[in-house]
Amino acid sequence: MHEPPRIITLTTDFGTSDAYVGIMKGVILSINPNAQIVDLTHAIPPQDIYEAAFSIYAAHSYFPKGTIHIIVVDPGVGSDRQAIVTRTDDAFFVCPDNGVLSYLLQSVENEGGRPINSVAIQNSVYCLPEVSNTFHGRDVFAPVAAHLSLGVPLDDIGPPLKTLVQLPIQVSELSGSTLTGQIVKIDRFGNAITNISETAIARLKSTSTGGVYTYEIRVRRVRLHRLNRAYAESGVGKPLAIVGSSGLLEIAVNGDSAEKQLGLKRGDAVVIRKVRQKT
Amino acid sequence: MHEPPRIITLTTDFGTSDAYVGIMKGVILSINPNAQIVDLTHAIPPQDIYEAAFSIYAAHSYFPKGTIHIIVVDPGVGSDRQAIVTRTDDAFFVCPDNGVLSYLLQSVENEGGRPINSVAIQNSVYCLPEVSNTFHGRDVFAPVAAHLSLGVPLDDIGPPLKTLVQLPIQVSELSGSTLTGQIVKIDRFGNAITNISETAIARLKSTSTGGVYTYEIRVRRVRLHRLNRAYAESGVGKPLAIVGSSGLLEIAVNGDSAEKQLGLKRGDAVVIRKVRQKT
Amino acid sequence: MHEPPRIITLTTDFGTSDAYVGIMKGVILSINPNAQIVDLTHAIPPQDIYEAAFSIYAAHSYFPKGTIHIIVVDPGVGSDRQAIVTRTDDAFFVCPDNGVLSYLLQSVENEGGRPINSVAIQNSVYCLPEVSNTFHGRDVFAPVAAHLSLGVPLDDIGPPLKTLVQLPIQVSELSGSTLTGQIVKIDRFGNAITNISETAIARLKSTSTGGVYTYEIRVRRVRLHRLNRAYAESGVGKPLAIVGSSGLLEIAVNGDSAEKQLGLKRGDAVVIRKVRQKT
Repeated sequence: MHEPPRIITLTTDFGTSDAYVGIMKGVILSINPNAQIVDLTHAIPPQDIYEAAFSIYAAHSYFPKGTIHIIVVDPGVGSDRQAIVTRTDDAFFVCPDNGVLSYLLQSVENEGGRPINSVAIQNSVYCLPEVSNTFHGRDVFAPVAAHLSLGVPLDDIGPPLKTLVQLPIQVSELSGSTLTGQIVKIDRFGNAITNISETAIARLKSTSTGGVYTYEIRVRRVRLHRLNRAYAESGVGKPLAIVGSSGLLEIAVNGDSAEKQLGLKRGDAVVIRKVRQKT
Repeated sequence: MHEPPRIITLTTDFGTSDAYVGIMKGVILSINPNAQIVDLTHAIPPQDIYEAAFSIYAAHSYFPKGTIHIIVVDPGVGSDRQAIVTRTDDAFFVCPDNGVLSYLLQSVENEGGRPINSVAIQNSVYCLPEVSNTFHGRDVFAPVAAHLSLGVPLDDIGPPLKTLVQLPIQVSELSGSTLTGQIVKIDRFGNAITNISETAIARLKSTSTGGVYTYEIRVRRVRLHRLNRAYAESGVGKPLAIVGSSGLLEIAVNGDSAEKQLGLKRGDAVVIRKVRQKT
Repeated sequence: MHEPPRIITLTTDFGTSDAYVGIMKGVILSINPNAQIVDLTHAIPPQDIYEAAFSIYAAHSYFPKGTIHIIVVDPGVGSDRQAIVTRTDDAFFVCPDNGVLSYLLQSVENEGGRPINSVAIQNSVYCLPEVSNTFHGRDVFAPVAAHLSLGVPLDDIGPPLKTLVQLPIQVSELSGSTLTGQIVKIDRFGNAITNISETAIARLKSTSTGGVYTYEIRVRRVRLHRLNRAYAESGVGKPLAIVGSSGLLEIAVNGDSAEKQLGLKRGDAVVIRKVRQKT
């Protein structure tokens, strides 16, 4: 019985039309030929740190304990921004210290602060012999992740870091009977995913009791009058609001793109209002 | 000597710009860390069941016996459509029961009905603990496929199903000396693949004897006067008809896109006429 | 302790919207279920042999010794062009003999001619039983690579080839204090990579001594007055010249696409002039 291979995931803005991603895999496999490499996505819009931060936050919890996640969206490559490894109780994150872990760190905080350790990547033994100023995915992040997958201890990578760069993350806000959030991501189907979590909706539902309530959801010019439980509950071509697979409220159109049909954009406000039904 | 890893293939309409596919891989590897995962394609147009049905039909026979194919093109997710596993003598197919196996089932029938067993996925032990209404790729299909790859017997997944949803599949028709079919798929090169098989063409060729025959192929405004055997036989930029790599007649343009140059679309009629040569 | 799996990389113009790439993987895994398959890129523009030649040249050296690279950009499929395997001291290349190894062969020559062996693929035992005229990626290149990964000796594949098809590759030229090259590749970020190597620049720098020199870089209407060392050295939105991660001069725009902003195209001349500073 041999141990299962360690998984290394890749999230980048490199696209797949150049060989950059393949080169990173070559570097990893040169160090650990048994690594199991999984692409999360390489279609992060160039240098869009927020989108990368949301993607790794939404995906990481579905991987086995000990998975190593590389995230390379790195506009500051070659400047003095740090390269880091962050370890949570579940996983390793190998990335530039530019905010790409912001959603993840915020969620850890919200859950009462599970332990997190971070180090600055400084031990050049675990990087390629020559480190360029333009491609740390190849020269730094891939080889460090490969060495971690072989069992190199975190402390060997570099000195501990107390604080990481954290981008301001908008969170939904409950005020009276109104819950306000924002669209944080639009997916390939044109579904608009918000920062309004199932938990926040539960809190809204419990704000007051007595009487019967309905929920009105507003985004741009659209008014929706219920929370749905499945895309197919709504007529084809009709907009709906639904708690999606990430546990977050989504604005969708059954069988079509909400982004196109409703003209939605990342950052748009989404408001849920609890309305007492007339009797 | 350890056994080779079981292969699990993925065919979806998820695209690769979101992390959905990566998440499915995380779920699979959490259950079977030694699974060998292969992407067939994630670029099925959103909710295009026909295209998915053609893709899995065209690809499945090139994989080793016992391969497990996941197909997730699933407009009815969250409704009461069934989730199923179908086993042929070669492979397993894990998918919604919405017609996505139509080409495959039709070909099995044509070949004299090899045995097929299907079950409805109902044993929640093999799904994720919480099954959402919007992402059964993650919550149902990926974990069931992973458990199958570990050797879970089909009967444990759920009760047998006698009939599956089958979409109407257009087939080519031979009438006198005319064989009529349709374009069923246009590929990335702009080649238009039809439902006219090599076998159907052989039947046309054998319809009558005596004399010398040529073949005229018509699609939209194009008339072709022979069946080619290689793209390079035709002049660059010239259209040609050729039995392609799937054993199906294709309309192509040497060095260019037949789709663009000839304005072809899925569903277009393609007619081969056997013409007696004047002597 | 079992041996690490052999790596097989894939570089094609097949895109990922059809199942062609997945089918090749099925063929490989049917022959060697333990092969480790890595996609370099499938987004080579259809039939663009130069782009494929540059990609495999830029990527191959980052893979472990013994890696097998399949390259299928093959406008002549079905004609009498040869199918070949070329072995360098580091790797195997399985591809059509159409110039797709031109950059690689040129670089080997420049480095003093490391040994290269090539054979024509003629032993049909290592191909699929039926070889089509349209898809040698599936029928020839994938199965031959899979057999090589199992240890089949090169000589068994077919007879030796003395010469390979080689496309004319533009190289940079030094004339007096002027170094002239061309853009050979534009990447997903819109960075324009030239054929001007770090070594060629070093040669320019050493052409004469005495006095202080600056460097003027010209491409289309752009004049740049220094060689940068990191993207972030230039203001956001400003063009810069930098030796990129492949050791080649790149024209880039910090935080934007040089291709779009400066209207650059493959083939554009790029000139570096050494200018004596007035004192």
